[in-house]
Amino acid sequence: MITSTLKEKLVSIVGHENIDDSKAGRLVYSYDATPQFQSMPDMIVAPRNTKEVSEIVKLCNEHKIPIVPRGSGTNLCAGTCPTEGGIVLLFKHMNKILELDEENLAVIVQPGVITLDLTNTVEAAGLFYPPDPSSMKISTIGGNLNENSGGLRGLKYGVTRDYVLGLEIVLPNGDIIRTGGKLAKDVAGYDLTRLFVGSEGTLGIITEATLKLIPMPETKKTMLALYQDMEAAARTVSRIIANRIIPATLEFLDQPTLIAVEDFAKIGLPTNVKAVLLIEQDGAPEIVERDMKRIAEICHEELAESVQIAGTNEEAENLTAARRAALSALARLKPTTILEDATVPRSEIANMVRAINEIADKYHVKIATFGHAGDGNLHPTCPTDVRDRDEIERVEHAFAEIFAKAIELGGTITGEHGVGAMKAPYLEWKLGKEGIAAMKAIKASFDPNNIMNPGKVFAKESRKRLVVTR
Amino acid sequence: MITSTLKEKLVSIVGHENIDDSKAGRLVYSYDATPQFQSMPDMIVAPRNTKEVSEIVKLCNEHKIPIVPRGSGTNLCAGTCPTEGGIVLLFKHMNKILELDEENLAVIVQPGVITLDLTNTVEAAGLFYPPDPSSMKISTIGGNLNENSGGLRGLKYGVTRDYVLGLEIVLPNGDIIRTGGKLAKDVAGYDLTRLFVGSEGTLGIITEATLKLIPMPETKKTMLALYQDMEAAARTVSRIIANRIIPATLEFLDQPTLIAVEDFAKIGLPTNVKAVLLIEQDGAPEIVERDMKRIAEICHEELAESVQIAGTNEEAENLTAARRAALSALARLKPTTILEDATVPRSEIANMVRAINEIADKYHVKIATFGHAGDGNLHPTCPTDVRDRDEIERVEHAFAEIFAKAIELGGTITGEHGVGAMKAPYLEWKLGKEGIAAMKAIKASFDPNNIMNPGKVFAKESRKRLVVTR
Repeated sequence: MITSTLKEKLVSIVGHENIDDSKAGRLVYSYDATPQFQSMPDMIVAPRNTKEVSEIVKLCNEHKIPIVPRGSGTNLCAGTCPTEGGIVLLFKHMNKILELDEENLAVIVQPGVITLDLTNTVEAAGLFYPPDPSSMKISTIGGNLNENSGGLRGLKYGVTRDYVLGLEIVLPNGDIIRTGGKLAKDVAGYDLTRLFVGSEGTLGIITEATLKLIPMPETKKTMLALYQDMEAAARTVSRIIANRIIPATLEFLDQPTLIAVEDFAKIGLPTNVKAVLLIEQDGAPEIVERDMKRIAEICHEELAESVQIAGTNEEAENLTAARRAALSALARLKPTTILEDATVPRSEIANMVRAINEIADKYHVKIATFGHAGDGNLHPTCPTDVRDRDEIERVEHAFAEIFAKAIELGGTITGEHGVGAMKAPYLEWKLGKEGIAAMKAIKASFDPNNIMNPGKVFAKESRKRLVVTR
Repeated sequence: MITSTLKEKLVSIVGHENIDDSKAGRLVYSYDATPQFQSMPDMIVAPRNTKEVSEIVKLCNEHKIPIVPRGSGTNLCAGTCPTEGGIVLLFKHMNKILELDEENLAVIVQPGVITLDLTNTVEAAGLFYPPDPSSMKISTIGGNLNENSGGLRGLKYGVTRDYVLGLEIVLPNGDIIRTGGKLAKDVAGYDLTRLFVGSEGTLGIITEATLKLIPMPETKKTMLALYQDMEAAARTVSRIIANRIIPATLEFLDQPTLIAVEDFAKIGLPTNVKAVLLIEQDGAPEIVERDMKRIAEICHEELAESVQIAGTNEEAENLTAARRAALSALARLKPTTILEDATVPRSEIANMVRAINEIADKYHVKIATFGHAGDGNLHPTCPTDVRDRDEIERVEHAFAEIFAKAIELGGTITGEHGVGAMKAPYLEWKLGKEGIAAMKAIKASFDPNNIMNPGKVFAKESRKRLVVTR
C-alpha cells in the first residue's frame, strides 16, 4: 500500500504533475493488450531521468511496493498488467534518441522512444535497425527490450536481443549499472545485457540502451505466393532454406486470416486460397533479383497457384502492412481475440499447423493461424468472447494442447511474445522444474523483495485468465 | 582435498582409466596458454556422458571440491588454470558432432569437438559456422562456448554467443537443464543460453550445444593494404564502414607484428611499412567484386602505399594463416609472451594504438599490436621474460594503463579472451562495484559452494601473475 507519507516522498522526487493516483488514471493502466487480464495499480509515476528512477526504486524496495515498467502496453502476455498492484512506471519523459553514432553504427536511446520513430531516424541516415514487431507504430523500445520483441525480419536478421550492445539499468536495490558499450565485442564478465533483454521487467528497470545498427539494404522485393494446399506452402519454406536462401521475410497466412485481413485492408488479396506465403528479400539489386527468381521457381515447383512480385513499392508496402494488420483484422471478428505464439523448428511447421487445426476442431473453436514461417514462429489466433464461459474454457484447453504439441515437436511456448502472467503456468513444460529453479534463483538474487513486476514469468499456482479488481 | 573414499566414488562413476592423479598427469593440466599462471589440480577426470558429469558435480558439490572444465587450454586469461586445485574435467570422450540438421540450419555438438572439425564438417554441407578464434585448429567448442570466443569474422558475423541456439547444462547442484532448441526465436524465461556462454565455467558445465549455421558465402576475396602511417590505416577502417560496407574481416597489424609474422611464415610480407590492413569480403561474386573495388579506392584515397588483392585462393589463405599465426610468431621473440585484448569503439582505434605505443615507450617495454580493427578489438602483445622481474613489473604497469585507457575511450578490458584469473582484478574498472555485485549475486545463486572454476572472473584481492605451486 502506498501511504500518504510514501506518496509525499514520490511527489518530492518526480513532482505532482508526474504522479496520478486518481481512479480514472489508474484504470487506464490496469490492463494491456492481453485479453482477460486486469488489475488496478495504486499509482502511475512518470520519472524524468535515471536518477529519479533509482530514487523511486529505492523507496519501493524499502516499502516492498511492486513496480511495473510500461511502454505502450502492446504486449500480448499480460506482461504489463499490474497483477499485484503497486506503481506503473511510465517513460513518457524518457523518450529521446540521445545519439546516432554513424561511425560506430550505434544509436543510444531512452526506453520511451517509439520503435517506428527509431526506425525512421536511423533509416534517414542510411542505417537499419531490423527488429520490427507488428506493433512498431506504437510500441516503445523499452517494451521491445523487456519482451525481446521479434518481428517479420527475424529469420534473416534476428530479434531485439541481437541488436543490443549495452544497457543502463536500475537494479532493484537502486544501484545504477551500465553494461556493454559501443563495442562489437565485450566479454568482461557475465552477459547482463542479454540477461536483461527479455527479462520482462522482473530484474530491474532499463533506463537507456545502446543499439547496434547495420547498413540499410540497398533494395527490397516483395512476393505473394498462393496455395490450395497448406503442406505445399510449408514445403516451399523448407525448400527455400534448403536452397541456401535466407529471405528477409517469410510469412505464412492461412485462409481464415486472409479473409479477415482482406476484409479489413481491402487491397485485393485473394481469399479463395488455403494458404499464402508473403516473401521478401533485400540486399544488393542483383542478389535480390536472383534470389526472388529462384524462390519463384521453387513456389511454382511446389504447385503454387500463383506467384506475384509486387510491381511497385506501394504495392509491396500494402502487402506487408496487411500482414502486420493481421491481429487488428482478426480482432474485429469477435469481442475477444486470443493470439498465441507457439514456436517450432522450421521443419515442423506443416505438422504444427495441422495439429492446430485438429485441436481447433476437437474443441469446436475457430483458430486462424498466421506467422513467421521462416522462424517456425506461428500465431494461432482465436476470435472468441470472454462472456461465453463455456467457449472460453474450450479455448483454454485448446491452447494448452497447442503449447504441449509445440514442445513435443521440439519447440517452445513463446517465440516472441514473452511469458508474462499469461504463459507463466506453462513455462515449466518447456524448462522443467530444474530450469525454473535456476531462473528463480537469478530473480531472487537480484530482487529478493520481489518488487520488480511481480507475478510475471513465474507462476504462483495454476493458469488463470480472470478479471481481478482490487 | 580428494580423500580415498571420494576417489573410489569417482572411479565407480567414470572407471579407473578415466581418472589420473599422478604427479605427471596433473602437471600437464596445471597451466593453460596464459603465461605466469600455474597451479596443480588434485585429479584429472574424463567423464563419458552427461549423466557422469552430473554425478561428478554432485559429489564435488557435497565435498566442496573445485571443478575446472577444460577444452584444449588455449585461452589467454588463465581461465582453465586450476587456481584452487580440485578436479580438471576433460571432454575427450564427449567429442562428437551429434547431428547436422540441414533443414533447420543447426548442428548439435558435444563440448570436446575441435572447432576446425566442426567448421570442416558443416562447410562440406555448404553451411557456415562463422566464429573462428585464431586457435581454432586445436581449440574445442566447449572452450569457445565458455569463453565466448571471437575471431577474425566478428565484425560481419558476430561471435560464438551469436551462434548458440540451445545448451544442455549440468548445474552445480547436479541438475541437468536444457535451454533453447533448434529455434530461431524463444523467449520462454530468462536467456540462460547466453548467460552461460562466456561464463567461463563458473556457473555450470556445458555438456551439449545446439549451434546456428548459415549458408556458406559463395565466394571470398582477400586484400592487403600497406601504409606508412598508422593513422591513415585507422582512417581507412572508419571510411570503409562510413561507406556502409561491412567486410568479413578487417585486420590490423603494426610493423613489429609484421616483421615477426614474416620471419615466422616467410610468405613475402612487406616488412618496411608501418601498418597493414588485411581485408576480406565474402558473399555473392558481384557484391564481393564491387565491395573490394570500393575498398581499394578508399585505401588509395587514404594513401595506402600498395593495395593488392590475392590472385589465388592459396595466396589468400596464406595471408589469413599468417595473421592467425601472429601470436605464435611473436611468441618466438622472447621466452614469455603476454597478449591482451583491450577493445574500444571502432572510431577510437587510432587513439588506442597511439596510446599503446606511448605507454610502451613510457615503461620501456616492447609492445607489438595487431587485431580486429573492424571490431576495435586490439591485441597489444609484449614479448618479455618472466625471469626479468624488473621488466615484468613494468609490463604489468603498462598493461594496467592500457586497460584504463581502453575504458576511458568507451571500451572494455577484454573483447574476446575473457576475464579468467588474469583480468579479474581489472573487472571493476569496467563494471563498477555495483556491476560486480550483480554478477556475484548470480554466481552465488547458482553455485553457493563456489565449486565451479573458483578464482575466475571475480578477484579476491589484487592482481597477481605468480607461479603458485601447491
